[in-house]
Amino acid sequence: MNISHPSASRRSFVKRLSSGVAAFSVAANFPALAIGAENGSRKKLGIALVGLGNYSTKQLAPALVDAQDSYLAGIVTGTKSKEAEWSQKYGIKRTNIYNYENFDSIASNKDIDIVYIVLPNSMHAEYTIRAANAGKHVICEKPMALNVEEAQAMIEACKANNVLLSIGYRLHFDPNTREIMKVAKEKPYGNVHYIQSEASFIMGNNLKAWRLNRELAGGGAVMDMGIYCIQAARYATGEEPIAIRAQEYKTDWEKFKDVDETVTWQMEFPSGAYSNSTTSYNIRSNRLYISYRNGSAQLEPATKYNGIKGSIQDRLLEPQPINQQTRQMDGFARSIMEGVPSIVPGEEGLRDMKVIEALYRSLKNGGNRVLI
Amino acid sequence: MNISHPSASRRSFVKRLSSGVAAFSVAANFPALAIGAENGSRKKLGIALVGLGNYSTKQLAPALVDAQDSYLAGIVTGTKSKEAEWSQKYGIKRTNIYNYENFDSIASNKDIDIVYIVLPNSMHAEYTIRAANAGKHVICEKPMALNVEEAQAMIEACKANNVLLSIGYRLHFDPNTREIMKVAKEKPYGNVHYIQSEASFIMGNNLKAWRLNRELAGGGAVMDMGIYCIQAARYATGEEPIAIRAQEYKTDWEKFKDVDETVTWQMEFPSGAYSNSTTSYNIRSNRLYISYRNGSAQLEPATKYNGIKGSIQDRLLEPQPINQQTRQMDGFARSIMEGVPSIVPGEEGLRDMKVIEALYRSLKNGGNRVLI
Repeated sequence: MNISHPSASRRSFVKRLSSGVAAFSVAANFPALAIGAENGSRKKLGIALVGLGNYSTKQLAPALVDAQDSYLAGIVTGTKSKEAEWSQKYGIKRTNIYNYENFDSIASNKDIDIVYIVLPNSMHAEYTIRAANAGKHVICEKPMALNVEEAQAMIEACKANNVLLSIGYRLHFDPNTREIMKVAKEKPYGNVHYIQSEASFIMGNNLKAWRLNRELAGGGAVMDMGIYCIQAARYATGEEPIAIRAQEYKTDWEKFKDVDETVTWQMEFPSGAYSNSTTSYNIRSNRLYISYRNGSAQLEPATKYNGIKGSIQDRLLEPQPINQQTRQMDGFARSIMEGVPSIVPGEEGLRDMKVIEALYRSLKNGGNRVLI
Repeated sequence: MNISHPSASRRSFVKRLSSGVAAFSVAANFPALAIGAENGSRKKLGIALVGLGNYSTKQLAPALVDAQDSYLAGIVTGTKSKEAEWSQKYGIKRTNIYNYENFDSIASNKDIDIVYIVLPNSMHAEYTIRAANAGKHVICEKPMALNVEEAQAMIEACKANNVLLSIGYRLHFDPNTREIMKVAKEKPYGNVHYIQSEASFIMGNNLKAWRLNRELAGGGAVMDMGIYCIQAARYATGEEPIAIRAQEYKTDWEKFKDVDETVTWQMEFPSGAYSNSTTSYNIRSNRLYISYRNGSAQLEPATKYNGIKGSIQDRLLEPQPINQQTRQMDGFARSIMEGVPSIVPGEEGLRDMKVIEALYRSLKNGGNRVLI
């Protein structure tokens, strides 16, 4: 991916956009039921993907082909050649194709109900706020932002513009993951004592990848994969962590000179539950394990796009033949049409950003216990 | 288990016994082939179990019933009622029954080739050294001792007396665990990048259990279960860790007022491999996971007496219908008969004690990185 960062500094941009935003209720009545493309007998909301990298190309666009409540209405790209290519492949109208210069004029486009930000992390806040100011509902990929301050500005901007904000937490739409959440809520096996969560992969050798660039990614494995472990510990307990300790380890000082390669951390929860996690750009692992007072559960793989499976006690959670991204985008479209918040609103992303800030603070302080 | 600690302090005892021990080669020629009970056409070595708690009662004694190269020849117990009970159940000669007062006279008993120390941790060094001084080969349960100093004294005492020392690391005799060791040696999937190992259980509410008493146990979950995680990381890599960081967490300050409840730690290995482990007396978990450069392997359960199973890449490691303890004791008996060291000699236990000392030093220093 080859993205040049806007010349104006991100921070001042966020400050400017979010200044003067008044407290605002998100439970407003959206004009959503009046919008959306008629398609057969069912109303579908139009989504514009912003940033046509791997995730948009290989996951989101194909997922929208089978969507019921949403469809791929537009694209925003800085790569000229992709315009014709995508237009042809997905039947996108020429008038629904934008670049980063004319992006704000999307405001007047009635085909676009939702803008999905699939840009490098450093651009999430800026484009979420610009989309909100253009009056569009927003899905922003995880991690929501580089820090808590940005996340709060994004939430405020969406409130101020009376649009909904959803974070790309597709696992909340996965049936097996939802079974784990249900156990956290109903506690059939007593309290959670322990969560072990891991999300790692071995990164290739493209040293120009934006994920290896601190300015664009905001951090390394923690920002990209560690956030899954934080999510998992939170939805497996149904609680918010109150303290954290973190440790860093590095083997490839060239590839990871700018960002974290491997990080482990432990979190404490109000009920006494405890977690231990590993995330890395140099390990293969993908698992969630939960020890309850009177039982256990696991998912492995726990965060992949397909084949999430595991067990709750002796009950197998078989892989489900669903598309997470289709469900996620359709789910948000229905939230908009029903005038209710996303099940993964900006506040959900903000909670993870608070944990990530505390995690990095602990790393900086040599692994000291940091309150969240 | 109800064991009163000898009045003489352990440390001064160890110092006294190990003083004046000269450097000594373990590769000496044992008179082992001349000893052992004739039983059919096969020679069996006689084992005396020292300490008839749960592990001796439920695991070791039954395991010896089916042994081929060893048999239950004697017992050492402080509980009078167990003498007749065990004598009757296992056909043990009256002359092969000892208590803690007359234990040293075992030296003259030709039926006893091996003394197996199954006492609380604080008594391992003392009884191992006394058994060695009585001219008996020794198996000592894990953890080998309370600290490195004791472990070294035990090794020296066995060398000085020309007897073999073996530590109760039964998993080295488990076929599936040996498959994991083989991968570490042959590296079909490249270097190990990561080991995640967990060994925990939820302890009952007997506040008098010796494992909750620091003087007898030397520590909590780390000493009892964490040592499995250290072992696992060592045999999964085939390397010795060079640095460690550790973190402690506690929820039940009454039950665990004396010893550690939950500890997590990370270890660095010379090749760059990294481990993250959790041990606890308040969690259910038992697993070894290994990420190689080009693959992965796992065992779950990884340390239980039965049913160890898992996979190496796509190859399933099915549960094996073997008795770990039978294999362990028979294996040591054959080592003695062949005049070769145990595959889990005192030096293997000493390595773990060095890691455990470093782990506790890190905990004491607030989680700082400690060199091993």
